[in-house]
Formats: sequence, structure tokens, C-alpha cells
Amino acid sequence: MEELDYLADERKTAQFDVESMKIVWAGSQHVFDVSDRISRLVASDPAFRKDNRTMLSRKELFKNTLRKAAHAWKRIIELRLSEEEASKLRFYVDEPAFTDLHWGMFVPAIKGQGTKEQQEKWLPLAYKMQIIGCYAQTELGHGSNVQGLETTATFDPESDEFVINSPTLTSSKWWPGGLGKVSTHAVVYARLLTDGQDHGVHGFIVQLRSLDDHLPLPGITIGDIGMKFGNGAYNTMDNGVLQFDHVRIPRSQMLMRVSQVTREGKYLQSDVPRQLVYGTMVYVRQTIVADASCALSRAVCIAMRYSAVRRQFGSQNGGPETQVIDYKTQQSRLFPLLATAYAYRFVGEWLKWLYTDVTERLQANDFSTLPEAHACTAGLKSLTTSTTADAIEECRKLCGGHGYLCSSGLPELFAVYVPACTYEGDNTVLLLQVARFLMKTVSQLGSGKQPVGTTAYMGRVEHLMQCRCDVQRAEDWLKPSVVLEAFEARAARMSVACAQNISKMPNPEAGFAELSPDLVEAAVAHCQLIVVSKFIEKLQQDIPGKGVKMQLQVLCSIYALSLLHKHQGDFLSTGSITPKQASLANDQLRSLYAQARPNAIALVDSFNYTDHFLGSVLGRYDGNVYPKLYEEAWKDPLNDSVVPDGYHEYIRPLLKQQLRTARL
Amino acid sequence: MEELDYLADERKTAQFDVESMKIVWAGSQHVFDVSDRISRLVASDPAFRKDNRTMLSRKELFKNTLRKAAHAWKRIIELRLSEEEASKLRFYVDEPAFTDLHWGMFVPAIKGQGTKEQQEKWLPLAYKMQIIGCYAQTELGHGSNVQGLETTATFDPESDEFVINSPTLTSSKWWPGGLGKVSTHAVVYARLLTDGQDHGVHGFIVQLRSLDDHLPLPGITIGDIGMKFGNGAYNTMDNGVLQFDHVRIPRSQMLMRVSQVTREGKYLQSDVPRQLVYGTMVYVRQTIVADASCALSRAVCIAMRYSAVRRQFGSQNGGPETQVIDYKTQQSRLFPLLATAYAYRFVGEWLKWLYTDVTERLQANDFSTLPEAHACTAGLKSLTTSTTADAIEECRKLCGGHGYLCSSGLPELFAVYVPACTYEGDNTVLLLQVARFLMKTVSQLGSGKQPVGTTAYMGRVEHLMQCRCDVQRAEDWLKPSVVLEAFEARAARMSVACAQNISKMPNPEAGFAELSPDLVEAAVAHCQLIVVSKFIEKLQQDIPGKGVKMQLQVLCSIYALSLLHKHQGDFLSTGSITPKQASLANDQLRSLYAQARPNAIALVDSFNYTDHFLGSVLGRYDGNVYPKLYEEAWKDPLNDSVVPDGYHEYIRPLLKQQLRTARL
Ligand SMILES: Cc1cc2nc3c(=O)[nH]c(=O)nc-3n(C[C@H](O)[C@H](O)[C@H](O)COP(=O)(O)OP(=O)(O)OC[C@H]3O[C@@H](n4cnc5c(N)ncnc54)[C@H](O)[C@@H]3O)c2cc1C
Ligand SMILES: Cc1cc2nc3c(=O)[nH]c(=O)nc-3n(C[C@H](O)[C@H](O)[C@H](O)COP(=O)(O)OP(=O)(O)OC[C@H]3O[C@@H](n4cnc5c(N)ncnc54)[C@H](O)[C@@H]3O)c2cc1C
Ligand SMILES: [Ca+2]
Repeated sequence: MEELDYLADERKTAQFDVESMKIVWAGSQHVFDVSDRISRLVASDPAFRKDNRTMLSRKELFKNTLRKAAHAWKRIIELRLSEEEASKLRFYVDEPAFTDLHWGMFVPAIKGQGTKEQQEKWLPLAYKMQIIGCYAQTELGHGSNVQGLETTATFDPESDEFVINSPTLTSSKWWPGGLGKVSTHAVVYARLLTDGQDHGVHGFIVQLRSLDDHLPLPGITIGDIGMKFGNGAYNTMDNGVLQFDHVRIPRSQMLMRVSQVTREGKYLQSDVPRQLVYGTMVYVRQTIVADASCALSRAVCIAMRYSAVRRQFGSQNGGPETQVIDYKTQQSRLFPLLATAYAYRFVGEWLKWLYTDVTERLQANDFSTLPEAHACTAGLKSLTTSTTADAIEECRKLCGGHGYLCSSGLPELFAVYVPACTYEGDNTVLLLQVARFLMKTVSQLGSGKQPVGTTAYMGRVEHLMQCRCDVQRAEDWLKPSVVLEAFEARAARMSVACAQNISKMPNPEAGFAELSPDLVEAAVAHCQLIVVSKFIEKLQQDIPGKGVKMQLQVLCSIYALSLLHKHQGDFLSTGSITPKQASLANDQLRSLYAQARPNAIALVDSFNYTDHFLGSVLGRYDGNVYPKLYEEAWKDPLNDSVVPDGYHEYIRPLLKQQLRTARL
Repeated sequence: MEELDYLADERKTAQFDVESMKIVWAGSQHVFDVSDRISRLVASDPAFRKDNRTMLSRKELFKNTLRKAAHAWKRIIELRLSEEEASKLRFYVDEPAFTDLHWGMFVPAIKGQGTKEQQEKWLPLAYKMQIIGCYAQTELGHGSNVQGLETTATFDPESDEFVINSPTLTSSKWWPGGLGKVSTHAVVYARLLTDGQDHGVHGFIVQLRSLDDHLPLPGITIGDIGMKFGNGAYNTMDNGVLQFDHVRIPRSQMLMRVSQVTREGKYLQSDVPRQLVYGTMVYVRQTIVADASCALSRAVCIAMRYSAVRRQFGSQNGGPETQVIDYKTQQSRLFPLLATAYAYRFVGEWLKWLYTDVTERLQANDFSTLPEAHACTAGLKSLTTSTTADAIEECRKLCGGHGYLCSSGLPELFAVYVPACTYEGDNTVLLLQVARFLMKTVSQLGSGKQPVGTTAYMGRVEHLMQCRCDVQRAEDWLKPSVVLEAFEARAARMSVACAQNISKMPNPEAGFAELSPDLVEAAVAHCQLIVVSKFIEKLQQDIPGKGVKMQLQVLCSIYALSLLHKHQGDFLSTGSITPKQASLANDQLRSLYAQARPNAIALVDSFNYTDHFLGSVLGRYDGNVYPKLYEEAWKDPLNDSVVPDGYHEYIRPLLKQQLRTARL
């Protein structure tokens, strides 16, 4: 009975080899093997249980996270896990913790901005977690505008030290994860002042807490900034507030790879090019895009399985009702999200390649592709995180009422995911950066300078401004070249239109500001083109496994055509396609949904997520939803007693009309 | 110092009389007075404090809600509040509680579906809260499909009783608010069985708990269904699960206004028309639309004030940075939401009128407008709740990082609001009902039957199918008639196109199902037209107060043109406007933003919300955001101690490399 698979029939209809698709999704056999092994390891260890997370008070929750982090580290050491395995383990533990910032921001900051000596001193300590670090950039008053930070680091030549200070309330560091309760050290960003001169914002390694008793060092005030969105979710993290009252650190703790302060207090630029720092940013954003495909695929997996289990309406002659996955509205909301998950997976993979490419070029002192790589990663970070946040919430709604229960897993997934739209660059601010780069690219088109990488299509702007889409039948929309050209034409025309409109304004800066809402739309069009084109490129590769490529082709078409439908206005207003062609795209979309339908469950099985990782009663692999929903409900602390706490004080007097005399 | 108003400069730039606008927003001087008085009463009573809500455990939270509900009732009695005042008081207490269902569903169900005798017996008990009731319709297995409910009520002629039973796990009642821990009674929906015959779903009054000791009566199992989305939020409500094991109730407890079971077990229809029941639905949905404008305006008020306080980038010569409200991207995201809040307010007001109208007609046995009223309210419920949920989240993002903190108020507002998209009819299911009505309307166009009410425009379908928008300059888009015609043409053409496409299909039912995603889009277009047209109608009235009407005209244009921009694809694909005209609308929109800018803060002040009701540090009236954010942070229980619980067990061993031997 326990072994019954309620989705078995759904799995039988798949027209492709799921095991092969799992490897495509993972990226390689090796990554699949590691992920599979480590995810099972985590799932089978009761210490990593997470189903009670949303019921814990903040303090219990946080202590629980500390326990898991310590246990994870213990297992990593005991099992002698490789770096790759260790990071997968943290991933599958699936709980934001100080370790994310330690490994994901503190260590990379020292690697990227520290000198060789600094790296040799600090990294071994960090690698063994003899110190725990965080990344303290944002302040109460400044986030997006890093150059506006107010914390100061004043060089004191007398003592060869920097004096770190928080001159105002708004200069308090605010938000750094891991800061509030755990970190012993931080990379602190502060304005460097030498001899009364302001050299702008630089990074400094600052010890925050005593390694003996964990108390903040003299002059340092630290706390947690309080509850955040959702229960469980990001509240496992101690995002913190930090103030310095003239705290002294040795000069050697300024991160000096790119610029230095000498013993005499002279400010110097090293011969290491500043741009090197951007390499790290490409790396971090690539991780964020990968995370987007992961969060999105989780939500889609839950909603897809539940949609196959849930039946509502349409029973005929007392037979079973219709599975809600069979309603076209459900498909038109859910299947594009499935396709998007795959699309983001592949663009994430490509970004990994881009990072390697950029790194190699930087090492060879070739900075030519950097601005394009920078714009491209900024845009993809923005696009993928915004879409994913919305998509998780859409998946929750697709589950009807039950999606609103924490046991569905979706509320927590949303709450924990959504700050990705804000951290590492507010998504609107990032799109404005992309737009700025696009305007520059357009303005240089006449100059003979060929646009590179993801903007290469702009080189064909003359063609793209006047080409005509030659779709005549719905099936024509299945041709990759047709789709690509439509997306290129739309993106190019939107950018060019913006550039023209700006040029009509009295001055370009004011024009850019005035037209920024349109510019953001042009940037989105550009980014969507990148994703579409990388999906198409992926399909030009050899992809083994029965029926696998065919399924991916269906998904690629669904991704592109559903975007086209959603942004019809762009395509039509730029004349990139005609209303008739838009309508044909929509017809084609419907038949693609019909093609995807029998494969829907297998396509989410291909993510290879354990029930532990999914953390959702609705998304269970076996589809045995109702008994488990019922079981979960009774675990709520409110059900500890049949008559609730407060009955005698508040309910009984009400019912008995004795409130007047009650003391409340 | 405490009295400083950081937004004073913003308030000075307003070009209209805020006090007059407050009355327009409230609906009348009387409603304004009551709201103003009661909201201050609640705000000044420490018993109604809510700033600690997100930090409480489920049990504490729930007990706290019981206390507030009892206190509210006590105050209502002590102050001899009228029904209107009492309901305002519950509204401003701003915490979901069993009382919502008691007053909002249980009482109306008895009023609407009970006979005169039943009303005389039960309503006095309910009015005094000598019994507390809930509305038990949804089951674990059925929500949207009410006709599929599985709970049975079998008439036993021997004892003149109904036997209420839950034959399966999925027949467990699941979701009813107030059920889990508080209600003594419920209106239970069950399939009526007499003499082996199934008469479909009917309502029954069932006592659930003993009035002596609050224990569930024999044969009844009740519990809470567990944590829901967010902290605080809807977790103050005891949504419950309920199972019946052959529970007997007297025959007199079937709600018999519309159909009856006689002593002999005969099933009869009364001469009261079935349609009467729909009156209640119009009423409930009107409330939901009003709630949407309220939730949306709260979120907009918070984001607007914070956007005027928050400065980021653009400092020149050391001067202050730019207020983020001055960025056009911020305006283009936020101002349309402000306009939408007003638009929904006015359409809500109109729905109140519609309810009265429908009620009067029903009393005069005129059912002719009922289908239209039904479709219209279904559509507006769906449109306003979906938009509002998305808008709250957009407002949260507009506040950058700080919007993610619970102290911003926005996470809880989102979590508590979002189920409105699901309860009282899943929004997609509702739009499909609207679409069905639209298709019927189109099919009858030839027949001479004139479409009524909000579908009256369909009567001019011939004109609308071929009319041409004659906008030539951006300002032409300020003409209400031009805007209205464009929205009518778009809606009519989308409906007609759907009807034509359906007629090409082998059969209409399959065609409707196949094309349902397009039908949903046509339904949305229709509903948006209703909102636009009611806003325009409102402006045809006399509106007193300096500059008030002028501001509302700006908002009306922003509402319509931002919708037009967002749904450009619809307008262009139907040929309702040209690309050039779409672009002119966009130009006009930009200058409308500039006109709204100096009035932005005054326009949210006009909602007249107290800081207590807003519940947001970022939305404070005085704009004194930073010190208060800082103050709130320290209240988190994690800050009770400098060194966190768990340091000795989990952090210290990690830092000291002693994990191997630690017991975790
Ligand atoms: C969960 C979480 C974890 C975090 N972790 C860390 C961490 O570990 N370390 C750390 O240092 N920081 C951290 N942060 C802070 C984060 O990096 C900032 O919140 C983020 O950079 C956004 O900045 P902001 O909050 O100042 O937003 P703001 O810039 O204040 O944004 C407010 C609004 O203004 C708009 N806006 C701002 N500038 C412009 C412009 N020029 N043009 C148009 N519109 C504009 C934005 O689009 C937004 O709508 C974290 C934040 C969160 C939410
Ligand atoms: C906070 C909250 C409070 C509630 N309070 C109460 C209460 O007091 N009393 C009570 O009785 N109930 C209550 N409910 C239950 C609520 O009324 C139902 O959840 C709601 O009616 C939706 O039904 P469902 O959950 O069955 O969704 P489902 O119908 O299962 O929806 C799942 C998906 O299927 C789709 N779908 C379903 N049918 C169709 C169709 N025919 N065509 C196309 N798509 C379809 C939906 O669009 C959705 O995407 C509450 C729910 C919540 C979340
Ligand atoms: Ca569009």
C-alpha cells in the first residue's frame, strides 16, 4: 500500500528516456552522480529534517539552523567530501545559513580582492572555518548606490592603522547575512580616507567578535535586523546590523590587490587591472541564474504533480473527474513555466562557459568582452530572478486552496526565493545598466566597431530593421531560424527606437532618464532573446537518449512562443510580426501543449528531486497527497489540545455573555 | 523633534484639497466620519497592538487573536456601537479571526437560505454570539466543484433526522475559517439523500461543539489544518478540518428556504425562486472588491511614502541624492498602482449600487439582470484580487531590501491578502464563467435580444468591429470617449474572435475548452473595460473640493493608459489602435506621471490610514523611517542575548575544530 504510485499511469505515457533527460538536466553524468548521491545522503539523515521549520519560533528556528550547519560540516569532514560534494551538500540541506555568505561572498571577496599575502593568511583560516566571515556592504541608507556608503576607514599614519567608523545612523551596516549572530569576521566596505582625502569605497577585513567568547569586540555593536518575509524561509539567516565606534585595524587588513595604502599613507593603484574584480561578479551572477532554474523547477515539479493528482469537475456517468492538468488554462499557465525552467537551466550552463571564457581572457589581459559579459549577466540575473519569483507564486495559485498551506512547500519557497530580485543588484537598476550598454552599442553601430557576444545580432541591424517574418502557417513557428529572427527584430527595433527617441531630447542624460521605462522594456527584450538563442544553440548539439531532443524541441518552442504571446505588444508595435502571425503562434502553442501533456510528469521527474528536497506534500513523487495533507495538519501545535488555550478567558465568556465582567 | 514631518515638503506641493479627497475616497462625509473615529479608537487602544504579530508562535498568535476578538466585542457592547460601527471596528482591528466567518458567512447563509422560522430561531443567538458559526463547504477533495462534495446528509424518516456523514477521507471538510478551534456551529454543505435518491448539495445547520465545555460532540472530529503562508498573516485564523461519523441532527436544521424535506421524507421545491441565493453572492463579491481597493491602497501608501523618503544616487556637489520617487521607472511601476487603487474604489462603490439594484429587482420578481450581474461580479472579483495580490508584491519590491523586512508591513499584507485569489471562487474558474457569459451574449446578438448592463456595449458590436481610433496627438488620449471606445473595441473584438474560432471547432463545448486560454484573456479585457468605464462615469458626477476632480482625471487617464500599454498586444492585434497611437498613449502617460508627481503623497494621505492600520515602519505618516527601522530590529527575540543560543553547542566547536567529538 505504501508503495503505490498514484502517478504511475502518468509516467507510462512518457515518450522519452527519463534517465537520459536527468543527465541533460544535471549537465553531465558526473554532476548527476554527485547530485544524486549527495541528495539522498541528506534526505536520509534525520538531522536534516525540515518539515517542522515553519512551526518553529525564531529562536528555535535559528538554533536549529546552527545545529544543521555544524552537522553538515561534521559530515563533510567525516566523509572527506570534495569541494564539489560539500557545496552540493549545503545546497541539498536547503536552508539559508551563515555558511552561504562565508563560502559564497567572504571567501570569494578575499580571493578576488586580496593580495597573495592576504590570501595566504586568511584563506586557510576560512577554509577550516576557524574564522567565519560575512560580506558587509549595504547600509541602512545605501544599497544600490554603493558609492554612497558612509562608513569611513581613516588611515592613521601614527599607528599604521585604519580607524573604521559609523558616523551616522544611516551608515550602520544593515542586511549582511551571517553578521547578526555568527560571523567572527567581515569584509567591510568603507570610504577610504587618507590625509583628508576621500578615495571612495574599498574593502577591509575586520574582526567583529572575540574568538574566545564570541562577544563583539570593543567599539562594535551588532544585532539581528529582525523577522523577514514568511515563516521558516530566510529567517534561518541572521541578517545583521553593525556599527563601529572608531574601531582600529592594522593597515594590512585593507584588501590591496587593486589599490594600496603605503606605510606613509600614500594611496596607490597596483598594476593589477581594476576590471579583474568583474570576473567575480560574472561568477556570482552565474550562480544566481543557476539557482533560478533550480527554484523554478522545484515549484513547477510540485504544481505539475499535484495538477495530475487533483481532479475537479467533468465527471461523466459517475466516472472520475477531470485531472486539472487537462484544462487548457492550467496548461497555458504551467507548461510555459516548465519550459522556462529548462531554458534557464541551459542559459545557466552557458554562463558557466562564459565565466571560464572571461577568466581566460582576463588572464591574457583581454578586456574586450568584459562590458558585454557584464551587461549580459546583469540582464540575465534580473530576468531570471523576476520571472522565477512570479512563477513560484503562479505555481502556488495553480494548486488552488491547498497551495496556501505551508505543507505545500510553495509559500516558503516563494518567501525564501524572492529577495533574489533585490540582492546582488535591484532588478530594475540592473536592467537600466543593460539599457545603457544597449544604447552605447547602438550609438557605435555606424563607427565600424562590431558588437560582440550576445549583442552580435545588432551588427545586422539594417537587415533586422526591415526584415519581414515569413510565417504563413502555424507550423512555420517551429523553425528555430524564424523564431530567432523575430526575437532579434523585436529586440533590435526596440533598442533603436529608444535611441532615436533619446536623440530627440534636449540632452542624452535627461532623455535616458525620461525614457527609462521604455529602456527597461528594451533591455528585457534583449535578455529574452539571449535565453531563446541559447536554448536553440543547445539543441544544435548532439543530445543522446531516446526522444530526449524531441522533448527539448517542444519545450524550446513553448518557451519562445509563450513569450511571444505574452509580449505580443512588442512584436506587433515594432512590426516584427503581423497580427495574423501572432495568432498563428498562438495556435501552434496550443498544439505544443497537447504534445507536452503526456510527457509532463516525466519532464519534472527528470529534475531528480527527492521528496526531502521538494519539501511538499503536494509534490510527492508517489502522488499520495490527501492522506499526507491530513497527517501534516495534525502536527500543528494548535492541535496539541482539543480545546484551545484561551478558551476559558476569551471564548467561554463571549458565549456566556459574561464579557462585561471579564478581565481581558 | 518627535513632531518633525519628513514629508512636509511633499505635502506642500499638493494641488488639491486633501480633506475633500478623503471624503471622495470614503464615499461620503458620514462614512468618513465613522471610519475616522473608529480607526483612531482602535489605534489608540493598546489591546489592539499588532506590531509584534510576526514574532509570535502559532499558539501565542492564536490566543492573542482570541483576546482581541473578545476585547473588540466587549468594546462594541460597552460603547453601544451600531452595526456599521462594529463592522468598521473589526475592519480596523485588521486581523483575520473567526468573527469574519461568523458575521460574513454564517449569518448571511442563514439569512439567505433559512426559512423565516429558522431565521427567528438562529439569528438572535448568532447576533449575541451565544453561538459562533462558520461556513463549512470546501472538502479535502473538492473546492471549486461544489457539486462534487461528498459529505452526505441522509434523511431518516424513523427519527425525523438527518444523518450527516463523511464517507471518505477526501470528504473531510477542509479550510473553513473559525472551524478549527472556535465555532460551536456550522452551516455544513452536504448531499441530501432521501429514500436512496441524491438531490445534490444543500446546507444544514450543525452543532459542532458542546456549549458547556467546548468539546466536539460525539461522532465529530475537528482540528486545525496547520500553518499557512507567512508569519502572522492568516495564521490568526483557525481554518479547520471536520469529519462526521453518522451525526444526527433534527430535520428542522436543513436550510429550507428554497427546497424542503417533509416529515415523510418528500423532497419539495418551495415557491421562493432559486435565484434569490445569487443576491448574497453579489453582496459577498462586492465586499471583496472593496477589500481589494483597501489592501492595494495600503500597499501603495507604504511604497509611495517610502519612495519619497528613500534617496539613492544622483547627488550633485555633495547635495542630497535623488528621491527614488523621482525615477521614471519607479513612477511607471508605482503610479499606475495608485490609479488602480482609486479605480477599484469607485468600481466597488458602483457594485454597492448594483447590489441594491439587484435586490430590488429580485423582490419584484425581475430576474432579467441577474446573469449579467453574476458574470460582472465574478469577473470583477477575479480581476481586482489578482491585480491587488501582484501589486502588493510589486510595492514590496519597490521598497528595495527594506521591503523584505516584516517591519515594512508588506510581507504580511501580501500573505494575508493573496488567498483572496482563491477563496470565493478560484480566479481562473471565475473568468471562465465570465467568458461563458460573453460567448452567450455574442451568440444572441443577432436574435434581437439586447445585451444589458456592463455588456450593453456589445449591442454596438457592428460599429465596434470596424470603428477606427482617431487619436493623432498624445493629448487626444485624454478624451474619455476615445479611451472608452478603444477599450470597447478591444473587448468586443476579442470576444467576437473567440466566438468565431469556437464556431470553427467540431463542437462548441470542446471548442470552448480548447480555446479557454484566449477566452480568459477576452474576459479580462471585458472586466478592465468595466473598471475604466465606471471610473469615467464617476468623473461625470459633480465632485466638490479644490482640484479634486482634476486629480481624479489624471488618475483615470493613468489607469486607462497604463493598462493600454500593458495590454498593447490586445489592442494592436485586434486593430483597435495603431502602433503609432500606442506610442502616443505612452508619451501621454509620461506627462501624466509628471502631473501626478507633486500630488503623489497627498493622494495617499487621502486614504486617511492611521499608522496603526498601515502597520509599516516604511509607510509612517511622518516619514521618520530610519530610526524606527533600527528600533524595530532590536525587538527581535534573537537579540535577547548578544551570544546566541546554540553558540556553545554548534558555533564554538566549529571554530575550535572540535566538531568531530561534539554531540550534535
Ligand atoms: C535577503 C537579503 C540579503 C542580503 N544580504 C546582503 C549581504 O549579505 N551583504 C550586503 O552587503 N547586503 C545584503 N543585502 C542588501 C542588498 O544587497 C540590497 O538590499 C540591494 O542591493 C538593494 O538595495 P536597496 O535596498 O538600497 O534598494 P534601493 O536602491 O533603495 O531600492 C528602492 C527602489 O529604488 C529604485 N532605484 C534605486 N536606484 C535607482 C536608480 N538609479 N534608478 C531607478 N530606480 C532606482 C529601485 O529599483 C527600487 O525600486 C541583502 C538584502 C536582502 C533583502
Ligand atoms: C485562506 C482560505 C480560506 C478559506 N475559507 C473557507 C471557508 O471559510 N469555507 C469554505 O468552505 N472554504 C474555504 N476555503 C476554500 C476555498 O473556497 C477553495 O480553496 C476555493 O474554492 C478553491 O477551490 P480548490 O482549492 O478546490 O481549488 P481547485 O479547484 O483544486 O484549483 C486547482 C487548480 O485547478 C484549476 N481548475 C479547477 N477547476 C477548473 C476548471 N473547471 N477549468 C479550468 N481550471 C480549473 C484552478 O484554476 C486551479 O489552478 C478557503 C480557502 C482558503 C485558501
Ligand atoms: Ca503585452
